[in-house]
Amino acid sequence: MLPEEILKDHIAKTVSLTDDQYSYVFSHFKLKSFKKGQTIIAAGDKVDSEYFVLSGCLKSFYLNDDLKMFILQFAMPTWWASDFNALYSNSRATINLDCITDAEVFCLSNEDREKLCKELHPMEYFFRWRTNKGYVASQKRLLSLMNDNVRSRYEDLMKLYPELYNMVPKNLIAAYLGVSRETLSRLYQHGK
Amino acid sequence: MLPEEILKDHIAKTVSLTDDQYSYVFSHFKLKSFKKGQTIIAAGDKVDSEYFVLSGCLKSFYLNDDLKMFILQFAMPTWWASDFNALYSNSRATINLDCITDAEVFCLSNEDREKLCKELHPMEYFFRWRTNKGYVASQKRLLSLMNDNVRSRYEDLMKLYPELYNMVPKNLIAAYLGVSRETLSRLYQHGK
Repeated sequence: MLPEEILKDHIAKTVSLTDDQYSYVFSHFKLKSFKKGQTIIAAGDKVDSEYFVLSGCLKSFYLNDDLKMFILQFAMPTWWASDFNALYSNSRATINLDCITDAEVFCLSNEDREKLCKELHPMEYFFRWRTNKGYVASQKRLLSLMNDNVRSRYEDLMKLYPELYNMVPKNLIAAYLGVSRETLSRLYQHGK
Repeated sequence: MLPEEILKDHIAKTVSLTDDQYSYVFSHFKLKSFKKGQTIIAAGDKVDSEYFVLSGCLKSFYLNDDLKMFILQFAMPTWWASDFNALYSNSRATINLDCITDAEVFCLSNEDREKLCKELHPMEYFFRWRTNKGYVASQKRLLSLMNDNVRSRYEDLMKLYPELYNMVPKNLIAAYLGVSRETLSRLYQHGK
């Protein structure tokens, strides 16, 4: 599938646009390729764009003062990633975004998103619902983290990203769940 | 301040509407009063509305199988509250929403929000940015919870809701932070 077709399918799940409107929307996205391990956003960077994943897998993560890694999000094809806090508040990144595998993304600047939302009411609707879904997912994860039920956290993750287990090193899955590599192995054995 | 003035001030921070547009928007909100301790949403309910707080303080919370309480949100004046997962996905509530104090709220149905967003492009912009801010706040709380730094969680909470310490029983603040009442007392003593 062409990059534009992937994006079109994704947008069409939420809103209908004419072919001319799609062409206009696409003209604001920039295609970028990254290699496995490459950094897209580093803590401290100015953040002015968000990324729609076309192929591969990204991770957004926070490193604390002891350099312990906390994974905020895995971003697979048709997911969006950025440091949204920095992006929306025009501040410096506090989280990092890099590539778990080689990846191809569509890059959309803050300015162009706002321009599209202003010019095309359906795109404002699209982005509102994209964030509504992200907000709800984030609240669910918050609750499962507070409730501290590692097994249900693991099951939620596998439901959310069924392909993940084969794509991502186990230590990263453990860093997402906030458990040790050993605890994860036990869960995986029992879950089979 | 009249309820409509509180809502107008809140909307005007994000978008500009004409007086006629404001009147039209207000006509979709229903004023409701609740007593301290009263339930607005109970787990299992059908959820079709969200609530804009005019006075008082609400809490949204989850009870696990052992009836341990996890507080997702305190909602004070000009904050919005609901079970957004249930509201957006047209499913039954998994969380509860009730009143810490007597409270007055403006109730907006799912249907009316979507109608306003469709009819008035600025209202679509308003609700997109409301959720963007909620999403970012939720991601920040997720990170602070994963990082498990109780002191910074406490400080973030006090920054977010400076009035909270005098308004809300300490056991509820502890349930928001995910710590015991004793740990909270130690933090409060040191924070003075």
